[in-house]
This record gives sequence, C-alpha cells and structure tokens, in this order.
Amino acid sequence: MENKSGFVAPLERLAEQFKKLPGIGKKSAYRLAYHVLDYSDAQAQSFADAILDAKRLICRCSVCQNISDSEVCSICSQAKRNKNLICLVEDPRDVAAIEKLGEFDGVYHVLGGVLSPLDGKGPDKLKIPELLKRIEVLRKENGDEYEIEVIAATNPNVEGEATAMYISRLLKPLGVKVTRLAKGIPVGGDLEYADDVTLFKAIEGRVEM
Amino acid sequence: MENKSGFVAPLERLAEQFKKLPGIGKKSAYRLAYHVLDYSDAQAQSFADAILDAKRLICRCSVCQNISDSEVCSICSQAKRNKNLICLVEDPRDVAAIEKLGEFDGVYHVLGGVLSPLDGKGPDKLKIPELLKRIEVLRKENGDEYEIEVIAATNPNVEGEATAMYISRLLKPLGVKVTRLAKGIPVGGDLEYADDVTLFKAIEGRVEM
Repeated sequence: MENKSGFVAPLERLAEQFKKLPGIGKKSAYRLAYHVLDYSDAQAQSFADAILDAKRLICRCSVCQNISDSEVCSICSQAKRNKNLICLVEDPRDVAAIEKLGEFDGVYHVLGGVLSPLDGKGPDKLKIPELLKRIEVLRKENGDEYEIEVIAATNPNVEGEATAMYISRLLKPLGVKVTRLAKGIPVGGDLEYADDVTLFKAIEGRVEM
Repeated sequence: MENKSGFVAPLERLAEQFKKLPGIGKKSAYRLAYHVLDYSDAQAQSFADAILDAKRLICRCSVCQNISDSEVCSICSQAKRNKNLICLVEDPRDVAAIEKLGEFDGVYHVLGGVLSPLDGKGPDKLKIPELLKRIEVLRKENGDEYEIEVIAATNPNVEGEATAMYISRLLKPLGVKVTRLAKGIPVGGDLEYADDVTLFKAIEGRVEM
C-alpha cells in the first residue's frame, strides 16, 4: 500500500500477518494493522498473549481428538453424556456448531479432515485408528450389552460422503450401528430454489406425518 | 459460539481479541481463531511478535507527526522533498494514500484527527502547535525568500471543512498560502449519480480546457 518512501517496516510486517488470515485482503490487513497501532501497550500484550496461549494451552482430547485445554475435554469428561453415541465430524468447528444446539447428548470424534486421495490424505492421516481403538475399549467396558452408534456427520459433499462410506464399511463388521445426517430442504428454505440433488434426497427421505 | 460444555478458554480469548478488530464479527472471529490454531509454533510467534513490535518500534516522526520507525521519518529525511509544500492530513492512512500515487513531492503534517467539539476534540488535541512551530522554523531557515504552502487535505465532510477553515485562519496571517483539494465528480464517476453538493462543487470549480 505504501511505496518505498512511506515505508514503516513494523507496520508492513503486522499487515503481512493479517493478510495471511482467511478472508482478509490487502486493504483490510492495513486497516487492522493501523487499528492495532492505536492499542495501548496492555491491549497489544493481551492480543499477543492470546495468540501464543492458543498455541501453547490447546491440545487434542485423548478420547475424542477435539481441541481441549485439558487431557480429556470438557465434553468427554461429562458423566451425563451417552458414551455409546459417537458423532463423527471433520473438525472442531463442527463440534461447536452441534454443541450450540444444546440438544445432542452423545459424544464426538474429530477426524481432522476427510479422505482426499488427490491431496495425499489417506486413512492414516485421519484419526480413524483412534476411533477403532476407542470402540474396542467401549466394547470391553460394556460387553455386548449396549449398542454403539456412530453418526457419520461428515459434510454432504463428495469427499465427506466417501469418508462416511469408508468408515461405515470399517465399523459395520464390528457390530457398530452407523447412521448419517438427514439430507433435505433446509428449514425456511424454498423448494423452488433447492438444487436437484437436494430435492431428490428430500423426496427419497420423506417421512410420514 | 460454543456453549459451556464445549468451552475451550484459550480459543474463546483469542476469538474475543479478533472480535475487537474493526469489521470482524463473532463468526469471523472464530474462523480466524481456528485458523491461528493450525499455525506452527513459529508462525504464531511471528504473529505475536509483529503485534508487539508494531507497538514497540513505531513512534511519531518529530517533524511531521506521521508514524515512523526512526526519530525523523523516511519522507521528512529525503533531501529531494520540497519542505515548503506541506500537505496537512488527518491521519497516517491519508499519507499512505497520497504516497501511493508517487506524484507528490512535498512533505506532510499529520494532525491526528479533526476538530470535533462535541467529542471534546479541541485544537489542543491536534498537532496544530507542532505545525505552527514547524512553520516558524521554516521561516527562520528560508527568510522570506520562499513561499510556504499548506494544502489542507482534511476529508471533505463537516468536521474536515471546519478544521481546514480553522487552520487557514491561523496560517494566513503568517503569510502562508493555504489551499484545499479540488472537489468534483470522481474520475470514472457518473453525473447522473453524483450528489447535489458534489455536482454543485464540480460546476463551481470548472476549469477551462
């Protein structure tokens, strides 16, 4: 934005950092950098600390692989959660979206992505071994008394469907019930503007009233 | 975004920090926070350092009050700049905008805002004393040989106009030429969509071809 004669290196470096964030272009990056320049020393320090703390204090829950600030996350350590109902999601954002509802009383398993052979992302790059081990442990604890259900809640796109299918084939032989989220017209949506595949899925999955 | 059960404090704190930035809402703040979570330790450290460095290393140029990483900024210390042509702007962003052109060969003076009595921003809150002192020093250096011109380049809104007018009244008795940026139809703009005041100014300020 500034040419050589107006160069203030620390400002440029800060704008560079903002520009690396998703959805932030060159103009916005400078706007944010100028904004931080008006911060008090304490405010700037809190911002810097928040970034470092996020990296330093956040780890993966040893059970569900979700982000956590303790060895077992706050969801997995809740006694009232149904440990035999596992919602399998792509990343921590999906957990946040479902938790916001406050309706789901099961637990989660965060895959850390989806299968994508073209990007070199095979099953070994996802938290699938951890899922299998987790189910094995559950089986030992429960005996065959309780049914284990895994909701394959990957996104309804090509990679998400393939990943759900792959995992379903792994889990069904183990006697695990695998389900998938319903597809159809979004609530408040409009039949007229629904795409063909969605409309077809909505008809196919129709329910009796 | 996450309810109590999904609470990961360091992530929340980072999202809070992003939410304080202009134009970043709750959803974007979380998106950015999750993005930073994927940073390597070194990347997070550079980001944090950039914030602290911007505060620590950037000061005000002792001549023009623009942001600078040295006592006299890179513009004021250029020998080829015409020191008798001072472009008076509201803040450092305006300097960047004009410098980007690469056409202006004068120097700047950054006011640090505009007069706004309702917000308690009187002349003492702006860098007006510094401007008067600067002109006094110039006069001593030059004698009366060179004309000093101040371009009052505050924004063309109520506060900007009032500030320009105030400064013009201060400087004219000192024998300083005070000018104001031309107002008119933006290049590439459309007469049909110009507002009344702009159109009037464009007619009033018409130039012979």
